[in-house]
Amino acid sequence: MADALRLAERGAYTTRPNPMVGCVVAHGERVVGQGWHQRAGGPHAEVFALREAGEQARGATAYVTLEPCAHHGRTPPCALALIEAGVTRVVAAMRDPFPRVDGGGFALLREAGIEVGEGLLRTQARELNRGFLSLQERGRPWLRVKLAASLDGRTAMADGRSKWITGPAAREDVQHWRARAGAILTGASTVLADDPMLTVRLADADVAPPLRVVLDARLRSLARARVRQHGAPTLYLHDAATTVPDDLPGTGFVAVPSTDGRLALDAVLALLAARGINEVHTEAGATLAGALLGAGWVDEILLYQAPTLLGDEGRPLFGDLGITTMEQQRRMTVVDQRQVGDDLRLLLRPQAG
Amino acid sequence: MADALRLAERGAYTTRPNPMVGCVVAHGERVVGQGWHQRAGGPHAEVFALREAGEQARGATAYVTLEPCAHHGRTPPCALALIEAGVTRVVAAMRDPFPRVDGGGFALLREAGIEVGEGLLRTQARELNRGFLSLQERGRPWLRVKLAASLDGRTAMADGRSKWITGPAAREDVQHWRARAGAILTGASTVLADDPMLTVRLADADVAPPLRVVLDARLRSLARARVRQHGAPTLYLHDAATTVPDDLPGTGFVAVPSTDGRLALDAVLALLAARGINEVHTEAGATLAGALLGAGWVDEILLYQAPTLLGDEGRPLFGDLGITTMEQQRRMTVVDQRQVGDDLRLLLRPQAG
Repeated sequence: MADALRLAERGAYTTRPNPMVGCVVAHGERVVGQGWHQRAGGPHAEVFALREAGEQARGATAYVTLEPCAHHGRTPPCALALIEAGVTRVVAAMRDPFPRVDGGGFALLREAGIEVGEGLLRTQARELNRGFLSLQERGRPWLRVKLAASLDGRTAMADGRSKWITGPAAREDVQHWRARAGAILTGASTVLADDPMLTVRLADADVAPPLRVVLDARLRSLARARVRQHGAPTLYLHDAATTVPDDLPGTGFVAVPSTDGRLALDAVLALLAARGINEVHTEAGATLAGALLGAGWVDEILLYQAPTLLGDEGRPLFGDLGITTMEQQRRMTVVDQRQVGDDLRLLLRPQAG
Repeated sequence: MADALRLAERGAYTTRPNPMVGCVVAHGERVVGQGWHQRAGGPHAEVFALREAGEQARGATAYVTLEPCAHHGRTPPCALALIEAGVTRVVAAMRDPFPRVDGGGFALLREAGIEVGEGLLRTQARELNRGFLSLQERGRPWLRVKLAASLDGRTAMADGRSKWITGPAAREDVQHWRARAGAILTGASTVLADDPMLTVRLADADVAPPLRVVLDARLRSLARARVRQHGAPTLYLHDAATTVPDDLPGTGFVAVPSTDGRLALDAVLALLAARGINEVHTEAGATLAGALLGAGWVDEILLYQAPTLLGDEGRPLFGDLGITTMEQQRRMTVVDQRQVGDDLRLLLRPQAG
């Protein structure tokens, strides 16, 4: 199953909006077939593994990181493929909460007399597809905020300049996190200040380009065009009172509810959920990052810390958290901590308040 | 020599103002004597090791982390003891820059026909006694600033409350850093806010109590008495215009030059140097920490980071660094990084500007 999880991860940049799935077909210790889901619309992990196993699938055990599907989607149900291949035992790390599966795959297998096991390395399997599961189970995407800061918690100088706090290794590392997200979210201030591309720049990697989403109530950042170029789709979210320019074909514009010039973040997330976005990677300034954290929408913080001090005039990590007492502090769990080049990288998750 | 360095470290809390020294006497791989300098005025490392070796010292090699002394101080010269014991080879990690030694020990040994080697693990030996070497070579103590902060670089709430940002493991760890310092430096604001004891609280450890030094130009923190109690010496540094109370026998008071109510930090360090303080451990607020860093007196920063956010209203790590451009940022080298309980500990040294 550990092998199957590693195989599944190979699809991290391409399977969206589908979950990553890996499959290993084996007789005891002897592996006869391996596969992973490579891209939405293409064959599932089980199909690749069964193809490789061929006749040797007969009497074998299939280890799958997610319950085999039971429905005719863009591909025929994998549960049937496993039955037809003559597999006698299926071990799945977890049930698929997707409404058209949700136990149906296990039921089909059991009806065919196949022994079914469930729950092996479930925690790791859930972690792998935390975006997919968030959308299925909570109805909203998994939301990550990426920040690069100094040791004194400053993301930029008072005048907004921040190039470059962290080193090349950290900036390269960020590309992998962008690549696994369905959307990269930013705010108008960041677009105005940095004119970022927000594309995935990874040599030799096959990446389905994430949707770039700009929160810009009054569309005041349109003059900064790089976020609309370079081959990835772009969606501007603005307020209902703002007129959409008619000379930008190919760029998406959607109005969302707003209050006092601030877009309603719940509406933004609902809209991204409706578009099948599993995981949102946010790169924004203190105002948007603070608003997301303050509203409780942040699932993880990816913090790169450069070993430098920018001084107490610099820009903060999160604005307006409204913390005035020690009781209101927002404690985090350190999920991962490592050195990336000269910088430190922390992956943090807010503790339930 | 690595063994000798480990032995030397056992004296970290007690040898002040002397350097830590370790000694191993061996025939090839076979160790016949070990010793370390335990406290100023007591026998040196070589004496302990030679005592343990006895007759077996004859024809042996002595590994010492510092050049054996050549002068009659409170104990007779170790170079003579090595000669008398019949040691035929001495390997020292480094020369002792102390003016009354400074090559004299090596000279004595060579005159007696003993083979002398120098420089094995020199970097580690210098690191071990960085306080002693700072005082000998630069005429000022090694200065460390300890800080406990949140991930967003805040040491306290806006109202000054900070109990407790870091966890018990981090607070216990700090005790070891206090214990190796000759002085613990703080400011009047910290005394007023926290009424700290600033003693070393380590069970089962033999510690020479460090001098507590309070920078308090106008002696406005005297009402907070814990920093004068609990068995360690205390020294207040104040400005020349302030009257010293006559009802605090046993507490030290020294006037130092000041400008606009701020004590001259160079005079403070000179005074501590004159008292033989090798290493200063600072626990203070953003104003004093910032002034020390701004003036270039900080040799290392011991930063405990708690995985929490205190918000952008919290107190900064360092005040008034006067950084307004990216070029002025203060880059650090990460000397050590580890997890201490739930917190992260970074040991940082400012990079030469």
